[in-house]
Amino acid sequence: MPHINLSNDYPGIRSLFVYRPETAKPLNALVQVLLHSPHPTLSAGERELIATYVSNLNTCYYCTNIHGAIAKHQLGNDAETVKAVLANVNTAPISDKLKALLKIAAKVQSGGKNVAGLDVAAAIAEGATDIEIHDTVLIAAAFCMYNRYVDGLATWQPENDAMYDHMGEQRAREGYGTPPVKVSEMQLTTNN
Amino acid sequence: MPHINLSNDYPGIRSLFVYRPETAKPLNALVQVLLHSPHPTLSAGERELIATYVSNLNTCYYCTNIHGAIAKHQLGNDAETVKAVLANVNTAPISDKLKALLKIAAKVQSGGKNVAGLDVAAAIAEGATDIEIHDTVLIAAAFCMYNRYVDGLATWQPENDAMYDHMGEQRAREGYGTPPVKVSEMQLTTNN
Repeated sequence: MPHINLSNDYPGIRSLFVYRPETAKPLNALVQVLLHSPHPTLSAGERELIATYVSNLNTCYYCTNIHGAIAKHQLGNDAETVKAVLANVNTAPISDKLKALLKIAAKVQSGGKNVAGLDVAAAIAEGATDIEIHDTVLIAAAFCMYNRYVDGLATWQPENDAMYDHMGEQRAREGYGTPPVKVSEMQLTTNN
Repeated sequence: MPHINLSNDYPGIRSLFVYRPETAKPLNALVQVLLHSPHPTLSAGERELIATYVSNLNTCYYCTNIHGAIAKHQLGNDAETVKAVLANVNTAPISDKLKALLKIAAKVQSGGKNVAGLDVAAAIAEGATDIEIHDTVLIAAAFCMYNRYVDGLATWQPENDAMYDHMGEQRAREGYGTPPVKVSEMQLTTNN
């Protein structure tokens, strides 16, 4: 049960956005810039993979599943790559540059000071640019916030794959600026 | 030395705001709502104390010093209370409600799932409201982001108390929407 009185009709961070629209606005604007807006070199799918990976390190069920679903849709319905990144970055079918960026993201998750010059040099050796390193660090840091926000208030995080897929498809298509759909109004065709 | 090429004329998070204005905008909007905008019950000084306390737990030198300076100015030039909170929450000259909220903030810092129902019940017993608990969790979570962002990119964090006091006085007065002053253009009268 959530630690404060939240609507039962929205899961995870959505219940918090409905509860406090004043903070929802910059929180959504931030994730829109980081994950959805056009980027010079990192695709939306790659950026969603970083968010999903960090959320999994923080064991945040809601964020891992919703951003995993968004990543899948941004990657052209590729659920296998999402699963492979969560299982083992080293053997996942992603570029060596993205592997190096995910290693930086993992360091950020464990604490900002843990990012070493060698980690950054390894990413640069794979072709990473300054803005890619910057955005990787900020995406990882931001999900250390979103994950703590969602879990720290003990939000409702239903285990329903079809629901996350439904929400993920919408966010991949529309971005983070549109209102969330109530769970009771979602058209879920499967519950796999 | 920072991990990416940043301006030498701005310390800490300011160098990152200048580097990437697109992300600076929502990051400043978020901290404005959380720490500076009018709040039903928590003073700006109390909210800055939560931010300072969490930054200190994350050992982020820049954030601890700048928000400690803002807290001091928001509390009517009261540096002693800031020091006392960082030294020992239990004996600091603050309300029992704020002590209970700081304990929740510490739990969030160590991981969202560590916030227990008993921690929340203790805060409610001291008179904490839902929105105070919500905002405490989100401030603590947000500083787990800001701290990781500042340290994860190895920003320049000068040890200059007068500089932090100068920046802190400006932010306490103006909030987080105005442009940062270049270090080379700051009028520092003391270096204590």
